[in-house]
Amino acid sequence: MATSNQNLKQEALRLGKQAKIAARQLAPLSAAEKNRALLLMAEKLEAKRAFLVEENQKDLECAKTNGASSAVLDRIALNPGRVQAMAQGLRDVAALADPVREVVKMWRRPNGLQVGRMRIPLGVIGIIYEARPNVTADAAALCLKSGNAVILRGGSEAHHSNQAIGAVLREACAETRVPQDAVQVVQIKDHALVTELLQLEEYIDLIIPRGGEDLIRAVVASSKIPVIKHYKGVCHVYVDADASLEMAERICFNAKVQRPSVCNAMETLLVHEAVAAKFLPAMIAKYQTAGVEIRGCESTCKLVPGLKPASEEDWSTEYLDLILAVRVVKNMDEAIGHIERYGSAHTESIVTTNYQKSREFVDRVNSSAVMVNASTRFNDGGELGLGAEIGISTSKIHAFGPMGLEELTTTKFIVFGDGQVRE
Amino acid sequence: MATSNQNLKQEALRLGKQAKIAARQLAPLSAAEKNRALLLMAEKLEAKRAFLVEENQKDLECAKTNGASSAVLDRIALNPGRVQAMAQGLRDVAALADPVREVVKMWRRPNGLQVGRMRIPLGVIGIIYEARPNVTADAAALCLKSGNAVILRGGSEAHHSNQAIGAVLREACAETRVPQDAVQVVQIKDHALVTELLQLEEYIDLIIPRGGEDLIRAVVASSKIPVIKHYKGVCHVYVDADASLEMAERICFNAKVQRPSVCNAMETLLVHEAVAAKFLPAMIAKYQTAGVEIRGCESTCKLVPGLKPASEEDWSTEYLDLILAVRVVKNMDEAIGHIERYGSAHTESIVTTNYQKSREFVDRVNSSAVMVNASTRFNDGGELGLGAEIGISTSKIHAFGPMGLEELTTTKFIVFGDGQVRE
Repeated sequence: MATSNQNLKQEALRLGKQAKIAARQLAPLSAAEKNRALLLMAEKLEAKRAFLVEENQKDLECAKTNGASSAVLDRIALNPGRVQAMAQGLRDVAALADPVREVVKMWRRPNGLQVGRMRIPLGVIGIIYEARPNVTADAAALCLKSGNAVILRGGSEAHHSNQAIGAVLREACAETRVPQDAVQVVQIKDHALVTELLQLEEYIDLIIPRGGEDLIRAVVASSKIPVIKHYKGVCHVYVDADASLEMAERICFNAKVQRPSVCNAMETLLVHEAVAAKFLPAMIAKYQTAGVEIRGCESTCKLVPGLKPASEEDWSTEYLDLILAVRVVKNMDEAIGHIERYGSAHTESIVTTNYQKSREFVDRVNSSAVMVNASTRFNDGGELGLGAEIGISTSKIHAFGPMGLEELTTTKFIVFGDGQVRE
Repeated sequence: MATSNQNLKQEALRLGKQAKIAARQLAPLSAAEKNRALLLMAEKLEAKRAFLVEENQKDLECAKTNGASSAVLDRIALNPGRVQAMAQGLRDVAALADPVREVVKMWRRPNGLQVGRMRIPLGVIGIIYEARPNVTADAAALCLKSGNAVILRGGSEAHHSNQAIGAVLREACAETRVPQDAVQVVQIKDHALVTELLQLEEYIDLIIPRGGEDLIRAVVASSKIPVIKHYKGVCHVYVDADASLEMAERICFNAKVQRPSVCNAMETLLVHEAVAAKFLPAMIAKYQTAGVEIRGCESTCKLVPGLKPASEEDWSTEYLDLILAVRVVKNMDEAIGHIERYGSAHTESIVTTNYQKSREFVDRVNSSAVMVNASTRFNDGGELGLGAEIGISTSKIHAFGPMGLEELTTTKFIVFGDGQVRE
């Protein structure tokens, strides 16, 4: 679609202004009013299943013509089961507690002023994502429940599906007190529109990009609006000298193999030299049986002959695949040094039975989730008890780690006085 | 000083890398170790009073040569009293609770995992500020106490003073376990160095600009690092139909007159039409006696003849001076509408005896501080009980309102397990 720059600027501005107006109407709504919209959205998604699958077909055909891989086709695909899952996702969000207007703390000042912090929505959130069309419904639900208007810009490969889902969600809004423009799906495919949106500091409060590192870096580079980002997850498990090796085997296997394609899967295994000879040969054999390719440090390769040696690059690579780098370390200091140098501040876990070591690891490692005797795969909003997540932040500003409904709010100070003035 | 771009890039990188190393050494230090450095800094500032005043003379002479106004000269000036106040500021920060490693919440998951959120430092903070050299000590203290390394870039008009203060602070660090590079004062005056610093996303976690709107907008425009910003404070007091007019007079006078040059001073007074005739003439007379220039809406000008009429521009102007815009409104809806349209999300206060109105105002107005029956002047970290403040954020990401020590931290998830893996 050929669109002049001027038109794109105007379209972005229109989206931003409408979102800001909607955000003001949405903010004061009660949880009941927002939940009514969410449940109606779920109902309508189910009722319009056939329409959604039909629109999705257009995306699939187009992707096939463009020679998309079967993995990409699977990510784009909507079938009745997936529509059902989206509807269930909306109902799950409706069941979560509403964070808006919660007073998180309150105290009294010597002059009698009562001061508190009350959660309020951020305002307008822009989500820029790729492939999976279910993000359209999931992200809209989390933003709506936290009182934020959302502008959704999905990947062009799922354009028809996203438009169709957006239309159904907006139709539901129209029958409730939630303004329709609380959920806007960008209609123009031209990527230059995204660049225009990223300039609208006055109308959009936060940008959340979801997708590959390239997408996220491009968004950060051109945005005037704060961006919450997650470049990659190079997660580590450190098996301490005092580990239960049976537990270590269970955790290390789960962290790598249970779902290797996600950001909280382990990419590098660090093993204390005192247990390496006892632990690694059996562990690596188990990995190899499960199809995991091992890339070892010098010591690892000595313990288990025939392994591919790890290169310097391996230590900072997010494989997202059945590949694992393994390094033997002298002690916990070396393990933490390795994590600081090569890690991505995502998730690290220590396996140990030593009280002192567990405390030191938790205190010293400053990743978004630091675990003792648990699989890295638990760094997930649902698993940690946030109810749902809109993404994982590996930058420390505003939110660090999985972001649930609370992370889509901020707090304002509320002050109750009896006529106090400053001296 | 003529410096090539390549040199500036290298110097910025050097500062960033050193800060990141220092941040890692600083993060694990105990409160006692950090306090020792703060108290030693205070001692040394007092001991080197003469040196500081001498260096400050160079700045003052240079400023005089450049024809600086007496207001600017006053802002730059250091005298023994001001050095003493800086030292006291450091002792006050030492007396505050250390936020680092506080576990703010902890809960248990159905699978037995114990999950919590632990405060950690942000890492490296860049502060870009103007004029007052005391910011060098104040900001360094807050960053140090919250476990963050800081890169300080003050205005060139206080260059010698800032260098001198920085040297004293670093000398104190050298005698403690706090790394010297936890406090770095930029030595190169060339403004292009700031632009280079703002690109160092990998080494600096947060930028806090302190100064005029132009400075802040310039920083936001060129920064790849998250910026916490505060453009301006157009603060309102709304005198409700049910206000105690005696209390309203006290609060309105204080909010405008007690210190008009600061961001939490009132700039626009909104008065319900039901009490305007009774309230405004006496109030305005009192203002005029105090030298306040009034710019009124049509109704205000009718009630008090001879006033200057307010222009459309007045409603969104931060005077920072003894000037006040006054508008009569039909009701609270109109008052809130005015605040949403012209306000800056900084501070708004309602004066009322009506329970329902007080609740509605607090719920509906989403400024960084929303008050009932109190002067807007209380929107200040010290007054609200945060202990101290490094600035006030009017953007909602990360922090909204005054930022104390807690706002210079983030939280990581900590997870204690017994071998849990994901199904």
